[in-house]
Amino acid sequence: MKSLKKQTLVLGLSAALIATAGYAASHAAKSSNKAVAARHAQMQMIGYHTGVLGAIAKGEAEFDAATVKAAAGNLHALAKMDGSTLWLEGTAQGEVDGSRAKAEIWTDAAGFAAKFADLEKASMDMMNAGDAAAVGAGMGGIGGACKACHETYRGPKN
Amino acid sequence: MKSLKKQTLVLGLSAALIATAGYAASHAAKSSNKAVAARHAQMQMIGYHTGVLGAIAKGEAEFDAATVKAAAGNLHALAKMDGSTLWLEGTAQGEVDGSRAKAEIWTDAAGFAAKFADLEKASMDMMNAGDAAAVGAGMGGIGGACKACHETYRGPKN
Repeated sequence: MKSLKKQTLVLGLSAALIATAGYAASHAAKSSNKAVAARHAQMQMIGYHTGVLGAIAKGEAEFDAATVKAAAGNLHALAKMDGSTLWLEGTAQGEVDGSRAKAEIWTDAAGFAAKFADLEKASMDMMNAGDAAAVGAGMGGIGGACKACHETYRGPKN
Repeated sequence: MKSLKKQTLVLGLSAALIATAGYAASHAAKSSNKAVAARHAQMQMIGYHTGVLGAIAKGEAEFDAATVKAAAGNLHALAKMDGSTLWLEGTAQGEVDGSRAKAEIWTDAAGFAAKFADLEKASMDMMNAGDAAAVGAGMGGIGGACKACHETYRGPKN
């Protein structure tokens, strides 16, 4: 009788532990999905501001120094963001739905950070572009940073 | 005959002008939609980082000084962003699909900017929170800034 009670207790505890682990896993999965969504929002804003500058470079929108400064400044802030809240371990492509993050982001963290630093520099350089031609010249650095990072650290479409 | 030619020319020019206006309008509509999407991405990132801090405040996630600093720092950068590329005139609720921006954003631009400044200050204050209780205390300022802005400048659900 005593042994049966003990066994029941052990079973009960195991069930509680499994439930806790299940809760923790589901909590982690939720955090992972949210981190991936936030990264996508960051990329959306980077793409948007690059597009604002690109339209000026292509003559589709009028050159305006304040707009260039604002768009480049926002790009700079986005590039400079602390990635530790966004690029959580366990959120690579295949680990979380919708993620295209390659494992190299974590195995080569310094290289990955360097790409964001390139975008940081290129957007800083763009801030004081004085005319549409200067915006066009600066687009090389910005587009180049985007492309280089995507080539190395972004996986194929899901 | 000459008069007919002239008439044809005038008609042709009018058509070209209408086409140009149409292109400009469609270009502007595209820009408006993109600006609204970028604003939503900004709000998504603000919500995400507020959630990271909120989970620590509620004890759902462990307190970690580096995470708090990163999340609060990113919030600060998001609050500080130059809104001139995002809150374009003509992108209020009813003017662009999906927008919930009230007209007051433009008629009371200083008041609107002050709300972002409140979030900027609250997130700066949060950066050096030393434990979960301090994060909890700081959440009041962050949540309060979000709420105050939404109450005054965000329209009902679409």
